[in-house]
Amino acid sequence: MNLSIGVDIGGTNSCVGVVRPDGVVSERTQFRTNEYDNGTAYANRLAVAVREVMQLATANTNEPVTWLGLGVGAPNGNYLSGCIEEPPNLRFKGTTPLVELLNERLELPRIALTNDANAAAIGEKIFGAAKEYRDFIMITLGTGLGSGIFVNNQLVYGHDGFAGELGHISVIPDGRYCGFGRRGSLENYCSATGIRRTYFEMIAQRGGSTSLDDKPLGAITAKDIADAADAGDEIAKATMDFTGRLLGEALASTALVTSPAAFFLFGGPVQAGEILLEPTRRSFEKHLIPPFKNKIKIIESALPMGDAAIIGAAALITPENKKTSPNLLSDVL
Amino acid sequence: MNLSIGVDIGGTNSCVGVVRPDGVVSERTQFRTNEYDNGTAYANRLAVAVREVMQLATANTNEPVTWLGLGVGAPNGNYLSGCIEEPPNLRFKGTTPLVELLNERLELPRIALTNDANAAAIGEKIFGAAKEYRDFIMITLGTGLGSGIFVNNQLVYGHDGFAGELGHISVIPDGRYCGFGRRGSLENYCSATGIRRTYFEMIAQRGGSTSLDDKPLGAITAKDIADAADAGDEIAKATMDFTGRLLGEALASTALVTSPAAFFLFGGPVQAGEILLEPTRRSFEKHLIPPFKNKIKIIESALPMGDAAIIGAAALITPENKKTSPNLLSDVL
Repeated sequence: MNLSIGVDIGGTNSCVGVVRPDGVVSERTQFRTNEYDNGTAYANRLAVAVREVMQLATANTNEPVTWLGLGVGAPNGNYLSGCIEEPPNLRFKGTTPLVELLNERLELPRIALTNDANAAAIGEKIFGAAKEYRDFIMITLGTGLGSGIFVNNQLVYGHDGFAGELGHISVIPDGRYCGFGRRGSLENYCSATGIRRTYFEMIAQRGGSTSLDDKPLGAITAKDIADAADAGDEIAKATMDFTGRLLGEALASTALVTSPAAFFLFGGPVQAGEILLEPTRRSFEKHLIPPFKNKIKIIESALPMGDAAIIGAAALITPENKKTSPNLLSDVL
Repeated sequence: MNLSIGVDIGGTNSCVGVVRPDGVVSERTQFRTNEYDNGTAYANRLAVAVREVMQLATANTNEPVTWLGLGVGAPNGNYLSGCIEEPPNLRFKGTTPLVELLNERLELPRIALTNDANAAAIGEKIFGAAKEYRDFIMITLGTGLGSGIFVNNQLVYGHDGFAGELGHISVIPDGRYCGFGRRGSLENYCSATGIRRTYFEMIAQRGGSTSLDDKPLGAITAKDIADAADAGDEIAKATMDFTGRLLGEALASTALVTSPAAFFLFGGPVQAGEILLEPTRRSFEKHLIPPFKNKIKIIESALPMGDAAIIGAAALITPENKKTSPNLLSDVL
């Protein structure tokens, strides 16, 4: 049986899983990312975790196992260089040559790295709802807003590996501050974090009580707000409407660039479905120019919430992905 | 000798030229586009013009001639369908299946169609300054603002052939009106037409005299304004600064999507060089997020002004372009 390994590096935890050919995560383990402040120590710990799940999978499988390799999704993971570069949310700063460090520690035919949103896009293409799409854009709503872009059946890396940073598109001139000192970026409004900020702004502006009043402030998530909106909470509904309006307008501008057949939306706030998708679609169609209207879909991701990052990372080294990105993957072979 | 034919369909004139392997237009002819109000009559006239330049070229060449084919650049020319679709500035409306009509009238191994900005991008790649670039964006400043995008050495057509409509990106909320009834689109400000509008707005706001006061109003072009700015005209300089500021900001947003190694600028207003390029670069760098700063070039096109559209159209059917777009060009073979 052909097995691959996916690694999802988050600011808090690193999750490692074995992915079966049908995209199901069978064995898994995790450890804390934030205990490591340098890349070499981190790579040592990650190699231990990888060996652990490989041994488990071999023990759990009755037939002979062929390991395809290891895919890693990480914030600021650069596919072309194989390095994690200046990650804002990790304790190991600067440039960490993770692919090189892992190749020194593991005997695997192929190890590749990309950022989390690109990994999600590849996961959607190989295992999710985008299988039949040659031109699409994946949007992930989490702490930030990430994107992965497919053009002509290939992931777009750009000249330096940094393509697909839609989270930093400016949507409101002189709007909310973001990490880079710039203002009004899309992710300050439409990421899971941005949706929370909008909810609090809506409470500030409208006053009154909400259906989440009994919940500790810090524990309120964008998914809670989406669910509250779905259940009729007026302030939460206004929050999702505002989010959809901005997101739809930004996606309409993006459609002008690569003319995708669909956008796939992934993340907690999307799980409530139409409560975000409907206002997003409405605003999207409103802002499109006529040749683009009524033909580009906005679809909920089919990747499972908990395992999407592991599945996407593992998809990076599948033969199907190699076939669709012949020029690019030759660089890491 | 391998020869190709390029056709540039404009709203007023259609220009037809024979293009040599080095990208030089040797024989040429033209006729009025706006005398034709249906696609079939137009295709008949175009076929006559094509035969005319082919006979001239054969007579002028001492060695045996091999015809590679015919490339057409037209407003709303769709590469994937081979049709001119709902062109706003042509008298033949609806959908004209130009590639099919021309294949019925001409014996050529290959006939292909794309829009004028895509043709310019392919021309820059095959014959111009973009030869060594795998990821770049061509921007044409004319009546409108067109763009052609290369990703991973291939022109981006999108799922429907409409990719690369950067002219319609919104830059000023509730700004100037455009043809689609939308407001504040980039091309209303930064196309050649938009630069004229800005010049008149600057005169309105600042009053006083300009260095173009002796010229008939209707004859003042964006190139005149760029040249006046270069010669020290304050209102013209303010116009070019304003143009560069908006253009640079829009290019910075676009860079986030495909991360090109360079933008190539083409058109009359660019011919004065730094007077537009300098403020564009300054604004571009200011609006980029850190991972994108100081590495993406903004370069003047190397295509000759008069023949760029013909050369670009002819480049569409060169073997070099076929090599760089294997998936796409198989569709028209």
